[in-house]
Amino acid sequence: MLSPMKSVVTGGAGFIGSHLVDELHARGDHVVVIDNFSTGQQRFLSSNASSVLKFDLLDQAVDLREHLEGADRVFHLAANADVRFGWKDPSRDLNNNLLATVRLAEAAKSAGVRRFIFSSTGAVYGEPQVFPTPEHAPFPVQTSLYGASKAAAEGFLAAFAQEGAFKVTVHRFVSVLGPRYMHGHVIDFVRQLMKDPRRLVVLGNGRQKKSYMHVADCVKGLVELEGSSDFEVFNLGADDYCSVIDSVTWICDSLQVSPSVIYGTDDRGWIGDNPFTFLDISRAIEHGWHPSWGIQAAIRNTATWLRDHPWVLEANDIRK
Amino acid sequence: MLSPMKSVVTGGAGFIGSHLVDELHARGDHVVVIDNFSTGQQRFLSSNASSVLKFDLLDQAVDLREHLEGADRVFHLAANADVRFGWKDPSRDLNNNLLATVRLAEAAKSAGVRRFIFSSTGAVYGEPQVFPTPEHAPFPVQTSLYGASKAAAEGFLAAFAQEGAFKVTVHRFVSVLGPRYMHGHVIDFVRQLMKDPRRLVVLGNGRQKKSYMHVADCVKGLVELEGSSDFEVFNLGADDYCSVIDSVTWICDSLQVSPSVIYGTDDRGWIGDNPFTFLDISRAIEHGWHPSWGIQAAIRNTATWLRDHPWVLEANDIRK
Repeated sequence: MLSPMKSVVTGGAGFIGSHLVDELHARGDHVVVIDNFSTGQQRFLSSNASSVLKFDLLDQAVDLREHLEGADRVFHLAANADVRFGWKDPSRDLNNNLLATVRLAEAAKSAGVRRFIFSSTGAVYGEPQVFPTPEHAPFPVQTSLYGASKAAAEGFLAAFAQEGAFKVTVHRFVSVLGPRYMHGHVIDFVRQLMKDPRRLVVLGNGRQKKSYMHVADCVKGLVELEGSSDFEVFNLGADDYCSVIDSVTWICDSLQVSPSVIYGTDDRGWIGDNPFTFLDISRAIEHGWHPSWGIQAAIRNTATWLRDHPWVLEANDIRK
Repeated sequence: MLSPMKSVVTGGAGFIGSHLVDELHARGDHVVVIDNFSTGQQRFLSSNASSVLKFDLLDQAVDLREHLEGADRVFHLAANADVRFGWKDPSRDLNNNLLATVRLAEAAKSAGVRRFIFSSTGAVYGEPQVFPTPEHAPFPVQTSLYGASKAAAEGFLAAFAQEGAFKVTVHRFVSVLGPRYMHGHVIDFVRQLMKDPRRLVVLGNGRQKKSYMHVADCVKGLVELEGSSDFEVFNLGADDYCSVIDSVTWICDSLQVSPSVIYGTDDRGWIGDNPFTFLDISRAIEHGWHPSWGIQAAIRNTATWLRDHPWVLEANDIRK
């Protein structure tokens, strides 16, 4: 009998990370979670993780290498995942998204881990000129600290791969939705509507076009899409997009509310917001992956899950 | 009479930086040099700098903002400029090229500096597939910590520009040659040949093709190429390239030596070396810049300058 694969998941108590833990466990992996629980939730972790290590990747007192010893692969999801509030504290993206990644990469190299799977973002394309946007889109101009920090982390990992440290797979996500979702426009809207179902304030003019994927599809991509060369990049998303106005309609319908909706005037919701996000996922599809959830279904599923788990609305109100 | 422009030059005691100081002084600027003198040389600085500040950009005891107060523009050249030795100390590129840049950017924003001119590198293209390589080449895959750190710095500066902090101009250089040149293959070859003119060992098989520019052209580009939008990128290089074998021929001829040349077998001289570097400079040319030095003349000028300034061969032997 084959011994089980040992997988380390950073950010394993978070939204996507905890689903990944469940998926890896179902596939027979021995799963080690590393999470600082800054946004991760103990109650997202079932018994599917063999061990849960609570520390911050930047904690100099922790010997990261020791915890990676014997691991076959590291899924690195720990990050500051909110693109909007970068300018409140510019060091947050730099530290949590870039420096933590480089520190983890050095430890993984030193521990002899052979595969590093990195969760990146479509934000690395800045405001692309090509839609849907492929992995080889023209050299990007970054528009947010979040995108800049993720692109920077990808770049350092590519250098590690070139040096022979380990194989790297990068997945660039559109926004991810589904159960355990904790930040982004759907939770903002649901939070407002649970407080006052008669009124909804939207950042931007509502015409921003965005693509979304369900966390079940995302996790399947993380596990199955590997590629064969030392450094591989896959966009993960949907083969469609919707407007914020569409999203408002579906959320209100799911929650059975009919608010007055107050839109802004700007075509961006915040500095670094992108008026149009739509990734070309044909490369992932050629490698056997396909999203099984449509955008409307993913948004409705998220809204009703949040309605049924109101503690999440309180737990992660990042604007507090 | 107009008051002179105040320009801050980080790395102003270095190879390119000190030439830039001379050029800015000649154009009437009030020039402030910031340099930690790790590779910078006091004797490269004439009286052209109005003040010379000796500290490291990462020194937390220094109030950077205070030193940028009243500056019209910052030319940021301070960096670890050697691409080869990244893996000896991976934190060096990260700290000196990225973190120092972000710290300087935060200080510049806080001091109200309106223009940030960043010296980057063609290494940000990794191993490009398109030659000559234009600024909008396909999304790069980094192949060195040096390239990754410079690309990361560009990305963070783009985010600062998007946020309205200041206008950014990025110049991506090919290798720069000329008087005060202190690291790279020409100094390695001259150093060997001054020690033993009968024997020259070359890293790689000599077929690597590289483009070079003379520091006089580089400095002209730094000062004159600004662009009009908030974030501008210009390649700076030559409209030609040469092989390492060509370079060996010209250097030996300039020094009047005829060594046995021992080539390696690899098409790369070191990890992260690029077998072919040739940037498309048509955008810079459309904006009025043009290189006035050919590659052969630049290489010969560098070799004879090094022969005539043997102290440089000793001062910066990074391999020690």
